[in-house]
Amino acid sequence: MASSAACIFCKIVKGDIPSFKLFESDKVFAFLDINPLSKGHALVIPKHHGAKLTDIPDDSLAELLPVVKKLVLATGAEDYNVLQNNGRIAHQEVDHVHFHMIPKPNEKEGLGIAWPQQKTDMDGLKALLADIKSKM
Amino acid sequence: MASSAACIFCKIVKGDIPSFKLFESDKVFAFLDINPLSKGHALVIPKHHGAKLTDIPDDSLAELLPVVKKLVLATGAEDYNVLQNNGRIAHQEVDHVHFHMIPKPNEKEGLGIAWPQQKTDMDGLKALLADIKSKM
Repeated sequence: MASSAACIFCKIVKGDIPSFKLFESDKVFAFLDINPLSKGHALVIPKHHGAKLTDIPDDSLAELLPVVKKLVLATGAEDYNVLQNNGRIAHQEVDHVHFHMIPKPNEKEGLGIAWPQQKTDMDGLKALLADIKSKM
Repeated sequence: MASSAACIFCKIVKGDIPSFKLFESDKVFAFLDINPLSKGHALVIPKHHGAKLTDIPDDSLAELLPVVKKLVLATGAEDYNVLQNNGRIAHQEVDHVHFHMIPKPNEKEGLGIAWPQQKTDMDGLKALLADIKSKM
């Protein structure tokens, strides 16, 4: 499985850096965020090292969300966001894929979201659909 | 598979409401968001109807992220956010689980994130860890 000697999350997976470990399986590791946005904020990561979602094999990706679900149930979170950021501009700070499970107990705590929605452009969407589908 | 007659996404899956369909398999459906935050903003949903992540069976959850990855590759997005909201306060608008794949081409377009990070509280985290683990 891919690993990076310089990666802080790979070090956490190996136990070289301590963590508040919540879950571990062959392919997945989960731990509490030590600078949480809200109580129960946890990270679920593939053990396979990769910076972005597209760097992770499908068999590892497949096991991540069932673990997120497990954590939601154990924390008792009612409202919550599941977020995975790719790239500095998209707010990624550690270059090892991680899914945030962030409880949203009230307006102030948890993830803050801005939603700069664009107008519907049917012709543009139609052209885009054809373009994306041609690449799948 | 669970379905809801009143659910707009169940109607899209059935074809009763048209969509810009990108992908379909036995358990997963993907389409373009018609009010995108950026070009290529797409939704990946389980066909199984459920409002929140915890309502979706693991075998459906397992198939979602490989499809998100497929779309990222086809759109050519470099930087992007993967987001799934649970509950009105957490910005969920349609009560059928959906993963947003939102390209982040620049500061203005795409998802806006506010990150109200809390201070590290080692004792609090330690107690929380024990509490969550006792419920897993």
